[in-house]
Amino acid sequence: MKREKWESDFNSWFNDVLSDAEIMDIRYPVKGLYVWMPYGIKLRNHVIGIIRQLLENTGHQEVLFPLLIPRDVFEKEAEHIKGFEDEVYWVTKGGTSKLNVDLALRPTSETSIYPMLKLWIRSHTDLPLKVYQVVNIFRHETKATKPLIRLREVTTFKEAHTAHESEEDAEEQIKKAVEIYKEFFDELGVSYVITKRPAWDTFAGAKYSIAFDMLAPNGRTLQIGTVHNLGQGFSKVFDLTYETPDGDQEHIYQTCYGISDRVIASVLIAHGDDRGPCLPPNVAPIQVVIVPVPFKEEKVDVNKEAEKVQDELEDAGIRAKVDDRDLRPGDKYYRWERRGVPVRIEIGPQELKEEKITIVRRDTGEKLSKPRGSLIEDTNEIFKEIKNDLKERAKSYLEDKIEWAEDLEKARDIIENKQGIARVSWCGQKDCGQKIEDETGGDILGPEFEGETKTGKCIVCGKKTKTPAIVARTY
Amino acid sequence: MKREKWESDFNSWFNDVLSDAEIMDIRYPVKGLYVWMPYGIKLRNHVIGIIRQLLENTGHQEVLFPLLIPRDVFEKEAEHIKGFEDEVYWVTKGGTSKLNVDLALRPTSETSIYPMLKLWIRSHTDLPLKVYQVVNIFRHETKATKPLIRLREVTTFKEAHTAHESEEDAEEQIKKAVEIYKEFFDELGVSYVITKRPAWDTFAGAKYSIAFDMLAPNGRTLQIGTVHNLGQGFSKVFDLTYETPDGDQEHIYQTCYGISDRVIASVLIAHGDDRGPCLPPNVAPIQVVIVPVPFKEEKVDVNKEAEKVQDELEDAGIRAKVDDRDLRPGDKYYRWERRGVPVRIEIGPQELKEEKITIVRRDTGEKLSKPRGSLIEDTNEIFKEIKNDLKERAKSYLEDKIEWAEDLEKARDIIENKQGIARVSWCGQKDCGQKIEDETGGDILGPEFEGETKTGKCIVCGKKTKTPAIVARTY
Repeated sequence: MKREKWESDFNSWFNDVLSDAEIMDIRYPVKGLYVWMPYGIKLRNHVIGIIRQLLENTGHQEVLFPLLIPRDVFEKEAEHIKGFEDEVYWVTKGGTSKLNVDLALRPTSETSIYPMLKLWIRSHTDLPLKVYQVVNIFRHETKATKPLIRLREVTTFKEAHTAHESEEDAEEQIKKAVEIYKEFFDELGVSYVITKRPAWDTFAGAKYSIAFDMLAPNGRTLQIGTVHNLGQGFSKVFDLTYETPDGDQEHIYQTCYGISDRVIASVLIAHGDDRGPCLPPNVAPIQVVIVPVPFKEEKVDVNKEAEKVQDELEDAGIRAKVDDRDLRPGDKYYRWERRGVPVRIEIGPQELKEEKITIVRRDTGEKLSKPRGSLIEDTNEIFKEIKNDLKERAKSYLEDKIEWAEDLEKARDIIENKQGIARVSWCGQKDCGQKIEDETGGDILGPEFEGETKTGKCIVCGKKTKTPAIVARTY
Repeated sequence: MKREKWESDFNSWFNDVLSDAEIMDIRYPVKGLYVWMPYGIKLRNHVIGIIRQLLENTGHQEVLFPLLIPRDVFEKEAEHIKGFEDEVYWVTKGGTSKLNVDLALRPTSETSIYPMLKLWIRSHTDLPLKVYQVVNIFRHETKATKPLIRLREVTTFKEAHTAHESEEDAEEQIKKAVEIYKEFFDELGVSYVITKRPAWDTFAGAKYSIAFDMLAPNGRTLQIGTVHNLGQGFSKVFDLTYETPDGDQEHIYQTCYGISDRVIASVLIAHGDDRGPCLPPNVAPIQVVIVPVPFKEEKVDVNKEAEKVQDELEDAGIRAKVDDRDLRPGDKYYRWERRGVPVRIEIGPQELKEEKITIVRRDTGEKLSKPRGSLIEDTNEIFKEIKNDLKERAKSYLEDKIEWAEDLEKARDIIENKQGIARVSWCGQKDCGQKIEDETGGDILGPEFEGETKTGKCIVCGKKTKTPAIVARTY
């Protein structure tokens, strides 16, 4: 399928998808707050199901902490409050009276969770401790808000928090978290670059931050996952200690990592074309739509057959739906393509007679004639192919957009004209970084994590450096 | 199992269960806010899974609306705001600046959802419309708070909202909603009385309210589900109209119905005994705990067998766990009983030799010796029996506690001394109701919905009346 509008007019493409695919209604009467529609919610629930499973499989336990954090607790960690003070919503009134203590709506949950860790962690045998929760968080964004991307209420925030005995263990957990997120995004077929954020863009209160970014066709990268090494910053402020095997008290080492509603945006964007998104079968709310294509006299028969196909698919655990509305088949095709249903099955008199079905792939438009008898095997096989092909397409799209720049001019060209991502040599100094950002119009995402290394000279100061940094326009 | 402490010292029983069964940590530093522990969250998720399924099966679609409601929208419906004004939390600041418009934390979502219904409903073909969401809601409770029961953040609020063409359709939906909740509580084995709340206890903005109440062993009823007929109250205020087949504009008729964290409390309470709760197998986070009971030389063998049993159970979709910790078997039994695991399997050398297993029921303590070969069938059979027996026990407990009172003194005796529920004849007048409440120390829950009818004379004024009213001390 063509990707012209997707690429040339991305912003309106994205807004159209939200409404035409019934993901969100953006007409809620408060800026930055949106309404999830039934189809969107189902997509979201499948996506969240994948990360939940990955976390459960790796020993994370689900918890659920309150939304409200008292001001004194929220303001304990100096860096943290500095990072968030401009965007925290404060509850100051209960009923008609002023509260004794203002309550923050969590913008993230370090300060709500960590006082409880103090009660939970006593000894080294309580470590490592790995918990996660899926919650709503709030940020009083002053920039232009955008559905799924820049929100005042993030309705889907999955945050994990871990505690460890040593710096090495925490480092090890960072790597594991990166692996979990890789697997997660790979399952969604979303391609990414992983970078270590520069100091000025580190999570408030963290030692360092690793981030996953995907690239939208408007040339902006979207941060879709972050992994933070908190060191002992919070544990010292909240006095989180454990007893070592020798009987000493030591402060714990902490990490946290999160994903948000942006993951849903990344799925829609990565697999978009001019018709809308093609949803990967593993997260598609409806995986197969069955359209009966009757001629007058056979109407009953093809409808009956469509029902039978649906029943068989559902018995095999496939989410299928017959569209027997009184519309022209072409209209139906279009509507389900707009909603991203990955597979369409057409059943007409010809198919009935020949004991076949026609399977159409949403991603390529390819029509396949398959024997009726191998419905389930063929459908599952096509799911696998679509999932894989979507992933490969996203991967090569991103790879094509990342390019080495030997100088600032080239970097600017990649970012501005190619709507791409520049790899540059950067010494790591803030001054040089500032210059790179000013001259290219991009932001430094940071040096690549586990990425390609290549010795080069900083494109500003000429100092020798090894790991390339990623520069791009960001959301 | 004995139910002495459960009955005689219920409050401390309940608090102990929350911590010993690892449901909640109640030490969060804000009154009325609590932390869900991993085991509690799993229980909650299974319970919510059941109501979700019931709603999906009956044509309800999941949506997700924002938490924040602007003051002007929240205050549109006069009765509604009167009912909630004392307990709404207000966000008045974003970052360091005052907001232009105060934002309410939803105490319930009528006023966030209904403005959008105006956009969604055009014609009679859009009706009925049935949506639901599972969200957190907030109430600035001034009464004593209690985990799961009286909260400032209700973390699990399932609310459904429906729109209809006519009063009859809305009435019909009320009945369907009652049926859904009956099925839900029946699945949980929780027994209830269903009453139509008196006018002074109707949901703010509703025509009338139906409520489900269960009885705690301290003689207090706990409202665990409500179903409200909203008539056209909200639709007139929010101007929610549809075009009839004749081309006229009419206001829609609305209903809403909700359940909360209290459902989890009701499961723990209904199935409690002196060891803690016995969780119904369909919602138990761990359905079977397998305890190897080795003699020294056979340790390896019984542990291996325990693993094998676990694998087989898990392959059959049963949530099973081997407890191979270095503790005495008796300690393990006790700990898992405290957590309400409904079935324990013991495997020792004897069982190995005879190719048997010992199955112990948590609810009765009964020990059964079963052939190893029919593990899955036997386990599933025992699940069914436990689920059914728990339900029957809860049912007869409640039935024993409900008694007819021919006069105020008898009603007082039932409520005060028997810690029960009184059925009385009441004319429906507020004055008589007030007197009943004053003299008996109970609250009028209201006339029974679909309950027994019996003509009698109001126990205050003597007027003839037909449907008995339910009176009890309430939470």
